[in-house]
Amino acid sequence: MATVQVPEIVVRRLPLYLRELMKMGAEGREITSSQELGARLGISSAQIRKDLSHFGEFGKQGTGYNVDSLAGELKRILKVEKAWDVVVVGIGDLGRAVARNTGFVDRGLRIVALFDSDSAKIGNRVGDLTVETTADMVASIRTHGVRVAMLAVPAREAQAVAEKLVEAGIQAILCYTPTSLSLPVNVRVEYLDPVLRMQQMTYYL
Amino acid sequence: MATVQVPEIVVRRLPLYLRELMKMGAEGREITSSQELGARLGISSAQIRKDLSHFGEFGKQGTGYNVDSLAGELKRILKVEKAWDVVVVGIGDLGRAVARNTGFVDRGLRIVALFDSDSAKIGNRVGDLTVETTADMVASIRTHGVRVAMLAVPAREAQAVAEKLVEAGIQAILCYTPTSLSLPVNVRVEYLDPVLRMQQMTYYL
Repeated sequence: MATVQVPEIVVRRLPLYLRELMKMGAEGREITSSQELGARLGISSAQIRKDLSHFGEFGKQGTGYNVDSLAGELKRILKVEKAWDVVVVGIGDLGRAVARNTGFVDRGLRIVALFDSDSAKIGNRVGDLTVETTADMVASIRTHGVRVAMLAVPAREAQAVAEKLVEAGIQAILCYTPTSLSLPVNVRVEYLDPVLRMQQMTYYL
Repeated sequence: MATVQVPEIVVRRLPLYLRELMKMGAEGREITSSQELGARLGISSAQIRKDLSHFGEFGKQGTGYNVDSLAGELKRILKVEKAWDVVVVGIGDLGRAVARNTGFVDRGLRIVALFDSDSAKIGNRVGDLTVETTADMVASIRTHGVRVAMLAVPAREAQAVAEKLVEAGIQAILCYTPTSLSLPVNVRVEYLDPVLRMQQMTYYL
């Protein structure tokens, strides 16, 4: 299976399945079905079965899926069995909220360092971490081999900071800054701009 | 044109075009082209021309697009010429960061009320607003005719709060809470879960 390229649209749904399975696990559920999972997510059961079939055989005909073991398989596929070390750059209101989020670790992301260029913020404690200067960012990321970053700097700084992250070895950036980055094709970027998502809805109002 | 249904995938790209055109406008640019816009966004120029053609004829062959007038047309299409009134429910770290975001108004969203169920938070000032009790939420939303909400409550409360929002007349919800909501089909929901987006990247690392 590993040699066949799985469509990106399928990969994009797997984290949603994992999140719902973890929720079921927390509810004490042991067994589920593609029908139930689909009903909870608003996705057809056929779609779920087809998506999972790209990665092997998980359920048994008639008995459904074991919640914990399917969650474990999805964690393995998504490479989040262990938490990735993550740096957050830009510790404004949003960066601070992100840094204090306690829901990341169980889902495969451990925030290990916070960076800002504002001397008024450097040295401040946020949760269990201390804000460090971006002057030390590249060296620190290299030393610790961090590959994943969250970017929440002002828009005018985003491109330059992102280039520094890539120089330091970052391969995946979650961009909270409302701007488009231009980076090498081997670097993955996902954008979280709430206004874009709102405007996708206002069209229909 | 109005009677033909535009594909949702097209509608989803329009806010991105608008954001980039507004950035160009802020840079003092007057004219652009589908080539330039595409290069800045990592989208093909043919795609941009095809997307825009659903809504009419905007550029002139050989002279490109007027930045401000195309931005104005996109604002009209997306119904964000005037700002929508928006309520934020759940004023934890993230809700507070959202409420303090000053970048929303110029892009068509004006936060007009903040609600939380925690008595320790009610009455607190966040930016120019005061946190109100969720007990007053339905009546307040009805009175002011608000149709758009941002939801940032804990996951265990999200479904019940969302149902109250719908009861109050909310038609579009931006959900910051990492959970799936089950709501009437006429209510639009967009989800912003950073972990889902991260896991969509870790698969490829």
